[in-house]
Amino acid sequence: MKKLQFGMIGGGNGAFIGDVHRHGALMDDLAVLVAGCFSRNREKSLETAEKWNIADTNRIYPDYETMAQAESQREDGIDFVTIATPNDTHYPIAKCFLEHGIHIMCDKPLALTAEQGYELEALAKERDLLFGVSYTYTGYAMTRQAREMIDHGEIGKITCIQGEYPQEWLAVSLVSDHSEQATWRHDPKRSGESGCCADIGTHVECLISRMTGLHPTKVIARFDHIPADVPLETNAMVMCEFDGGVPGMIWTSQVAMGHETELTVRIFGETGSIEWTHLKPWELRVTRINQPPQTYTTNRDYLYPAAKELCRLPSGHIEGFYEAFGNIYHSFCVNLIAKKTGGDPGSFRYPTVSDGVKGIEFVDACLESNRNNNVWVTVGRD
Amino acid sequence: MKKLQFGMIGGGNGAFIGDVHRHGALMDDLAVLVAGCFSRNREKSLETAEKWNIADTNRIYPDYETMAQAESQREDGIDFVTIATPNDTHYPIAKCFLEHGIHIMCDKPLALTAEQGYELEALAKERDLLFGVSYTYTGYAMTRQAREMIDHGEIGKITCIQGEYPQEWLAVSLVSDHSEQATWRHDPKRSGESGCCADIGTHVECLISRMTGLHPTKVIARFDHIPADVPLETNAMVMCEFDGGVPGMIWTSQVAMGHETELTVRIFGETGSIEWTHLKPWELRVTRINQPPQTYTTNRDYLYPAAKELCRLPSGHIEGFYEAFGNIYHSFCVNLIAKKTGGDPGSFRYPTVSDGVKGIEFVDACLESNRNNNVWVTVGRD
Amino acid sequence: MKKLQFGMIGGGNGAFIGDVHRHGALMDDLAVLVAGCFSRNREKSLETAEKWNIADTNRIYPDYETMAQAESQREDGIDFVTIATPNDTHYPIAKCFLEHGIHIMCDKPLALTAEQGYELEALAKERDLLFGVSYTYTGYAMTRQAREMIDHGEIGKITCIQGEYPQEWLAVSLVSDHSEQATWRHDPKRSGESGCCADIGTHVECLISRMTGLHPTKVIARFDHIPADVPLETNAMVMCEFDGGVPGMIWTSQVAMGHETELTVRIFGETGSIEWTHLKPWELRVTRINQPPQTYTTNRDYLYPAAKELCRLPSGHIEGFYEAFGNIYHSFCVNLIAKKTGGDPGSFRYPTVSDGVKGIEFVDACLESNRNNNVWVTVGRD
Amino acid sequence: MKKLQFGMIGGGNGAFIGDVHRHGALMDDLAVLVAGCFSRNREKSLETAEKWNIADTNRIYPDYETMAQAESQREDGIDFVTIATPNDTHYPIAKCFLEHGIHIMCDKPLALTAEQGYELEALAKERDLLFGVSYTYTGYAMTRQAREMIDHGEIGKITCIQGEYPQEWLAVSLVSDHSEQATWRHDPKRSGESGCCADIGTHVECLISRMTGLHPTKVIARFDHIPADVPLETNAMVMCEFDGGVPGMIWTSQVAMGHETELTVRIFGETGSIEWTHLKPWELRVTRINQPPQTYTTNRDYLYPAAKELCRLPSGHIEGFYEAFGNIYHSFCVNLIAKKTGGDPGSFRYPTVSDGVKGIEFVDACLESNRNNNVWVTVGRD
Repeated sequence: MKKLQFGMIGGGNGAFIGDVHRHGALMDDLAVLVAGCFSRNREKSLETAEKWNIADTNRIYPDYETMAQAESQREDGIDFVTIATPNDTHYPIAKCFLEHGIHIMCDKPLALTAEQGYELEALAKERDLLFGVSYTYTGYAMTRQAREMIDHGEIGKITCIQGEYPQEWLAVSLVSDHSEQATWRHDPKRSGESGCCADIGTHVECLISRMTGLHPTKVIARFDHIPADVPLETNAMVMCEFDGGVPGMIWTSQVAMGHETELTVRIFGETGSIEWTHLKPWELRVTRINQPPQTYTTNRDYLYPAAKELCRLPSGHIEGFYEAFGNIYHSFCVNLIAKKTGGDPGSFRYPTVSDGVKGIEFVDACLESNRNNNVWVTVGRD
Repeated sequence: MKKLQFGMIGGGNGAFIGDVHRHGALMDDLAVLVAGCFSRNREKSLETAEKWNIADTNRIYPDYETMAQAESQREDGIDFVTIATPNDTHYPIAKCFLEHGIHIMCDKPLALTAEQGYELEALAKERDLLFGVSYTYTGYAMTRQAREMIDHGEIGKITCIQGEYPQEWLAVSLVSDHSEQATWRHDPKRSGESGCCADIGTHVECLISRMTGLHPTKVIARFDHIPADVPLETNAMVMCEFDGGVPGMIWTSQVAMGHETELTVRIFGETGSIEWTHLKPWELRVTRINQPPQTYTTNRDYLYPAAKELCRLPSGHIEGFYEAFGNIYHSFCVNLIAKKTGGDPGSFRYPTVSDGVKGIEFVDACLESNRNNNVWVTVGRD
Repeated sequence: MKKLQFGMIGGGNGAFIGDVHRHGALMDDLAVLVAGCFSRNREKSLETAEKWNIADTNRIYPDYETMAQAESQREDGIDFVTIATPNDTHYPIAKCFLEHGIHIMCDKPLALTAEQGYELEALAKERDLLFGVSYTYTGYAMTRQAREMIDHGEIGKITCIQGEYPQEWLAVSLVSDHSEQATWRHDPKRSGESGCCADIGTHVECLISRMTGLHPTKVIARFDHIPADVPLETNAMVMCEFDGGVPGMIWTSQVAMGHETELTVRIFGETGSIEWTHLKPWELRVTRINQPPQTYTTNRDYLYPAAKELCRLPSGHIEGFYEAFGNIYHSFCVNLIAKKTGGDPGSFRYPTVSDGVKGIEFVDACLESNRNNNVWVTVGRD
Repeated sequence: MKKLQFGMIGGGNGAFIGDVHRHGALMDDLAVLVAGCFSRNREKSLETAEKWNIADTNRIYPDYETMAQAESQREDGIDFVTIATPNDTHYPIAKCFLEHGIHIMCDKPLALTAEQGYELEALAKERDLLFGVSYTYTGYAMTRQAREMIDHGEIGKITCIQGEYPQEWLAVSLVSDHSEQATWRHDPKRSGESGCCADIGTHVECLISRMTGLHPTKVIARFDHIPADVPLETNAMVMCEFDGGVPGMIWTSQVAMGHETELTVRIFGETGSIEWTHLKPWELRVTRINQPPQTYTTNRDYLYPAAKELCRLPSGHIEGFYEAFGNIYHSFCVNLIAKKTGGDPGSFRYPTVSDGVKGIEFVDACLESNRNNNVWVTVGRD
């Protein structure tokens, strides 16, 4: 089968996330990178193109509008575009490509405001375009196994959800010399009104939703600035109610010394529990009532096919962050190919513009609760 | 030095906690059990006395009032009494012994209402009597090490506290045959209005306070009944503010499948963090900013003396639940001996009636918040 | 039922192991300490007697011979004696008590030479006396669960055994100030020709045997002195063949920095595996072929009765080193009571003089292999 | 800088290792794949070429000899070739490319006999060609950190080394349906006389050597066939002496239920220890004498530059098996570029033909010891 062709906006300044996107998209040979605008600086953009083996420099564009227009007019134009630019530019870029009929994989967050999100969601629907949002952790195979087990009733009705994502990087950055990220991630103009909650709280929220099928319906949130002089919150505590009245808590912090990237989701049901942690993402801790906890691992016969098909290596051979991205792209590409060919994408799923919208709604509700003395705030539109 | 003499109320019906108290009190040969009313059934009380090597059956009493009176009048009367009866009887028994001038070690909780607690606290103060409350986990040596480190500024000003205590026992009890505890722990008459929060939430609250020196000043709490037909809450989520405005969260559950007795406290500071979990109570995970996490263990040269003196066995030899109780009694006895002899108790501390009061206040505030749509409620009296 | 009465030789000089024996023997109220010779220094012996609540000082003896004779002649003489003296005195003391018809619980090792061991074993058999040897780790409930599972065929025929016991204490002692143990444990006169292998290698050997029912039949051993100037080996590597030709390895070290008391036994079978480690002695890691590993824990319904009856506390409440000793004494006492009353000891077992003999044979074979360029040496008598 | 060009032999039949090589080589954009003979079946070879974006089908060759000749004659011929074919073909292919002056990265093992290895080593030296052997685990950044720490004296003189690599895959394969690998890995004609020891024992041996700088000088080895009817050993136990008389043990098994790919190396020194396990390859457990163990992690400021430069992602973002391969290729390419340009490769290292030779020598010595009743056998030529 012919590979998908794609382009990328951003990723050219040595930002690690651009390269993560590229590796993810190329990983399983379902797509090939043929066009891009990797930087506003043409020199850098061309350097990146060369480094990334794009032979035809005519497809290296000075800006995203030009690229969207040119590629949409080519017979062999790109099938989709990856948006890996700073947060505040996701919305206009995505909108532009949607308007030119090009499918999208957008780095997280989708946009800075819910209105922007709603517009993109509506536009994608109207134009019948795929729109992925790269919530990394949803790409880990075992998080998909969790969803299959829950959907098959293996832990009964869900009764409580605990999510957390402590990091220490921002605290460490303030005492060491690599504070570039610390700077832009805490510039309200570029990252929105929320810091920690938007940056990593949404990862927790999205992962919970994808693992369980449940979304938060209302929240009580408290944001703290630690240390006091950071412009955005670095510690966010959220009490949630999920669909069906399920209680839960989410804690995220960027100043939690001793923790690097420790996203953990624990899901409790009437007859069992399922726990996943990024500390050992190839495992799933599964307990059935009154039985010893079990440790499921990747690529084993006992997994559901929807999870097993996300594993590349024999069990015990670690697939990490790049491969999680690879799974998101793999699933996106399979769906895109199915769409183009009228085929069946099987059980491959990826986080979409709707997940992106829900992430913004979650943050907005948390912001409002935090402003209003931590009262319950409903998530989303009425 | 002459050993302390003590008596016990309760503990005679094969309840495991009575025996835990006895082992704790006897562990380091600072006290000897000489009197008691182990059961309202005299037969059983005498059986227990024989089993526990109490030779003088005259000191086995039919009820606590008789015992308090008789022992207070003996020249060689007991130095202190252990109260290991059901929760609803702690208050009258403690009050009676205080009024007879006898020091007390009371099982947790101190009482069922704050008013009862205040009365006991005032009475103990007035009569100048020691009054311990056996919050088990505060007896682990490494939790004391945490406090010393924090007091010595090793992690800087505290910025966030995360506590949790998930258990599965109640859910398991409902499907297996040993549901006796499930019954009385969820009888509001015997255990008060709160289930999970009172039973184990107070353990978290007290341990945090003793590890950090900080108390919760206000709370938002949500209680859930899981499954729906249990009379008291089995899942409690609490958002806290501690002294000095420090944010924190506490989650406790008795229906968290896959977790047995997993009390964990994580304390974050401006320059480091300290984490303790009952899953490995002989360890302390310590991180200093921008340095690799370290695993401190019991009875090592690098510990503070106040922690090291709570260790009996060479490092690596596990001291568990009984020994934690032993440490509480050891510390209590050292203080009592110091009081009697005018000596110096050194750095030995134990949880007191004031900790017990604070526990009740915490639960009361949580109950009120839960009733009032989860708004902030101030902890304690104005 | 009337409690057993016992005496103790040794334990009076603040040696922690004496107190561990006493706690173990008293733990479940099956025995009471009534006599002893705790030290050759009578003053100290009496102090210990007082501390340990022995009222009748007539039963505090100047030496073990006097005690054996006197107690064997009393109508109410001790039922058994605990031997908690330095290693080189176990043999004469045990022999003396056996000759006076008194049952024995002896600290490990049984004796310094196999000949001594054989003599004691024969004598115990001849006099029909119980003779326990307190191999601590065999007292952990989960090691008994392992044996039940293996005996019930849950992992099939055993195919390989891996045991290890790394410690760092001796290396640490050499740089810190508490080197007393380091001294006597490495005085060949008092501890025999082997250091590390005799001291902790035998713990591994015995635990393997009790968990699996298999004994080493031949060994290749290499001993190393680390640092070079210690009188006895501090690092021992052993390649084993167990009954039925099962291969295995045992590594023990007293200079393994970063390890405190990390006895681990992994048993592999044709259809599964069972692993136990003293790092979490309340767990058993069980894997059935092509299934996720499971974590069994103490005092659960799914355990075999023989293991469950060794648990005192609800699951999740840690029982450690003292309680392991308690289980050995509990099992010994149940057997002794059964013997005296003609009752049935049920499934309670304890390590015996035969285990002690096998330990010496194991060390002797290792010593010989080490001397002879590490060739295979048969374990035991022909 | 111009990228290196490379070709590949093998990898075209969906064998996962070929794709792992390709991903590794391409990961950091230092090389581009331009030629190959991916299968003896031309159809498949061309399919692979298309899938892997090789435009010029003239550079897809029918056999390796043709390819070596053609590429060596092209002005723009490949800089190096990756050999990812079955084990028995490594030698002739490597020899052929060396003779045509082409640098090599060869999958492990280098060859089936020591003689073949010596010949290749000599040839590479004679022709002054780089010759890498892809011992995967040496590519993990933290194993390099270990070496730096040891070389800087951070744990003092090495005193003992413990290595192991238990797997369960072969046992599992025999009961499940994916036994293809089980078949060829145990065909003596294709994999040599040794099974488990050659397949994974060499991984342990090589990793130890690269982490410590020490090689085994003599071994006692015992091989077992589990189950009895497998043609080659599936369980190998080795007692080693390393350079300088350092004792050690290596255990590897392919039938160790409950273990997937658990390569662990523990290195003990006079003043500390360093431990690495593939269960958490981004960590290093470091203990300094009488201090708490520390957990070093990837990409932190406190790492040595030689380790830090092998990290791509922020700490806490997992780099796994692919990235370990990526590091081997990265290091190889940096060295090759330096060689071509006269530049300095800095601290980048990779396992070479000499490591491959030592691996064969290790297996040969183990085979001989196993045949001769497990006596000491010297490793390597006199």
